[in-house]
Amino acid sequence: MSVLDTIIEKRDGGTHDRKAIEELIGGVVSGEVPDYQLAAWLMTVYFRGLSAEEAGILTDAMIRSGEVIDLSSLSCPLVDKHSTGGVGDKVSLILAPTVAACGLQVPMMSGRGLGHTGGTLDKLESIPGYSTALKTARFREVIAECGYSMIGQSERVAPADRIMYVMRDVTGTVESIPLITASILSKKFAEGAQSLVFDVKCGAGAFMKTPEDARALARSLTDASKALGRPVVACITRMDAPLGYKVGNSLEVEESLDSLEGRGPEELMRVVYRLGGWMLVAGGYVSDPDAGEVRCREAIEDGSAMQRFRENVRAQGGEVERLTVDRMRELRSPAVSVIRARDDGVVAGIDAFAVGQASVLLGAGRMKAEDSVDPGAGVELAVRVGDRVNAGDMLGRTYAADGAPTERAESVLSRAFTVLPGAGAAGDGGEMILEEISEL
Amino acid sequence: MSVLDTIIEKRDGGTHDRKAIEELIGGVVSGEVPDYQLAAWLMTVYFRGLSAEEAGILTDAMIRSGEVIDLSSLSCPLVDKHSTGGVGDKVSLILAPTVAACGLQVPMMSGRGLGHTGGTLDKLESIPGYSTALKTARFREVIAECGYSMIGQSERVAPADRIMYVMRDVTGTVESIPLITASILSKKFAEGAQSLVFDVKCGAGAFMKTPEDARALARSLTDASKALGRPVVACITRMDAPLGYKVGNSLEVEESLDSLEGRGPEELMRVVYRLGGWMLVAGGYVSDPDAGEVRCREAIEDGSAMQRFRENVRAQGGEVERLTVDRMRELRSPAVSVIRARDDGVVAGIDAFAVGQASVLLGAGRMKAEDSVDPGAGVELAVRVGDRVNAGDMLGRTYAADGAPTERAESVLSRAFTVLPGAGAAGDGGEMILEEISEL
Repeated sequence: MSVLDTIIEKRDGGTHDRKAIEELIGGVVSGEVPDYQLAAWLMTVYFRGLSAEEAGILTDAMIRSGEVIDLSSLSCPLVDKHSTGGVGDKVSLILAPTVAACGLQVPMMSGRGLGHTGGTLDKLESIPGYSTALKTARFREVIAECGYSMIGQSERVAPADRIMYVMRDVTGTVESIPLITASILSKKFAEGAQSLVFDVKCGAGAFMKTPEDARALARSLTDASKALGRPVVACITRMDAPLGYKVGNSLEVEESLDSLEGRGPEELMRVVYRLGGWMLVAGGYVSDPDAGEVRCREAIEDGSAMQRFRENVRAQGGEVERLTVDRMRELRSPAVSVIRARDDGVVAGIDAFAVGQASVLLGAGRMKAEDSVDPGAGVELAVRVGDRVNAGDMLGRTYAADGAPTERAESVLSRAFTVLPGAGAAGDGGEMILEEISEL
Repeated sequence: MSVLDTIIEKRDGGTHDRKAIEELIGGVVSGEVPDYQLAAWLMTVYFRGLSAEEAGILTDAMIRSGEVIDLSSLSCPLVDKHSTGGVGDKVSLILAPTVAACGLQVPMMSGRGLGHTGGTLDKLESIPGYSTALKTARFREVIAECGYSMIGQSERVAPADRIMYVMRDVTGTVESIPLITASILSKKFAEGAQSLVFDVKCGAGAFMKTPEDARALARSLTDASKALGRPVVACITRMDAPLGYKVGNSLEVEESLDSLEGRGPEELMRVVYRLGGWMLVAGGYVSDPDAGEVRCREAIEDGSAMQRFRENVRAQGGEVERLTVDRMRELRSPAVSVIRARDDGVVAGIDAFAVGQASVLLGAGRMKAEDSVDPGAGVELAVRVGDRVNAGDMLGRTYAADGAPTERAESVLSRAFTVLPGAGAAGDGGEMILEEISEL
């Protein structure tokens, strides 16, 4: 079957067999399939979709397009978590040491921040000395030593995904759910994880703005994984307001340290415990996520999670003596401005997208992949949704490098807060876990 | 607006404005728009379509991407005909001299045969010496001298169409009706025609197999022309069986000579007269196509059409002494085989697609654009639909160069005939003009 036939098959609503997909991906990686045919096929998939089985085969072909990290020498269950990206989403930094303390091994290959969402690698690298560029052998060793390791995606893992990602970006096919699915799964399963827990963020600050879209992506991820024979769980979690009070790289490490010491913000910790609970189910340590949550809570309370975090930072070259909130705070960029409430009332909403944008404008994130980040820049919120405020109270504060242009950031941030008169707050607390789909 | 925004606009069902389309086509011709973005956009158009207004703007941008032939010095109404392609479709060879004899001027820029359909240029070039590669000045002169001229598409006319055509061919977007529309109209209006009559073929031997598809294309052609402010008519004509008895280049010139001398097969002449009738309406010589048909019939009967044909052949370098059926017949390739009826019955159908394929296999056409053709190869039918035959009667005969592999052609051709027992024939004669859409 020629690639043209494959394009026409999908264009006409047909279903690809394994051979067609493998030939396509093989040709994409070898360069035999020209860009324009890949572009045309991607657009047919945008319109026609892929079945769970096709998405599974595509994922498999993309995994096998490059190196698959062999972690079979490790003795504990290998479970990872993947988040579709949010604002203030420092869950991985807290969750990995927590479940490692409970006996899992977590081979976490993460990305950098792009657009309004931050990236785990950027956050960790705000700890002086911390390196996420480990060779495979060292990655394996660090997991064996402290239960988890955090690295960036190697050039050798899933090269088909990198080629397709670049092409999707310039052809208007980023938003295709089966293509997102195969992209996520191929990277995650190539890193050596046996099973996965997905955190599908939903709301203003997420890629998926509506419950319907989030559910469609969660279903696609779990169905395709099932077709691949991989046990997974997807949790749809709320991302209307930022997760926690701090947004920015070193700022989020501060809040992660607070959280590992038992002082984490409630909404953030609800997400950490639930995902951790499911990871322990996936690893076979508990039979239900409620029991898993209890174990995770204990690991925070008894200090073993914090201990794992310190061990990992040391193993990956970071300055362990930095690991207190006060010492990390010294790394903040200079405070720039304060946003204050104009009226008395209740904080009805904090728009995560606006806060994320403000954070990028302050230098904490990237507009384009080649931008560099300011590790100390970002936003600190003084309130959470549901808080009562008086006119003149501080709502948030910005940090940026000396001389950085911050006016747009301040203007964006000031519009992020909705303060309404009256008592009952619209967005007060509320459920963080909106839906769960288990294919374990 | 970036090209990516244009892709996304169409992907999401939006409508392009003139600026977006002009920037896209400008970038395609200058090379600034990469192939993969053109491919992605073409596929969005395949799925989302274009409005008549968008197709008109696209056509206009494609016309202006290259040279527009200026025929304003000519004094008579400039009307051309375009056929979407059929088997045995020698209409242009008969029609152009006929309407020229009635006072029109016909600037006919034609294509070569590709796939199962033949091309006017290939047919004319089977006349020894005939050249279709005229410079613009000579094209204008020949039209002025004999009322019409037949040339190939210049490299300088509608270069955007050539680029897009090649890309459509490799990305599965050939079948998009608005893209077909803009491709046809841009070439035809750039050649200098003031108005056009479309022959939209419908049936087994046509690009459009069903009346619905043919109607959609006819509507798209007339609506987009109207949006451009150009007067046009579309006739949907039958293409289930080949048009006439002869299929192949010199073979079709033979049948054209016969037709110009008043001995044309009935179905073929019905199409010639109707299209000619409409061309005379378009030129303002008559008020309705019936009156136009009468004028065309007279031009054949009084020999003036044949006279124009001879003048044109002389003007374009062809051997005028060849212009008798007997002299053309000498150019046939050797006869290869005869297909005979296996049973008594009535010819219920002759599959034009199969006859076209057989003709290509015999060497008369092209599988790929770079193939060369054998001017003397082809198929001669001994029967038409509705004829009564006895077992052993000849149904058709093949011609091919010495040593050419003809077995597949014979096998394909033998399956083209449907002979059914009984009297009443299914496909007997019947209407040739299925529908007419006038936007004059």
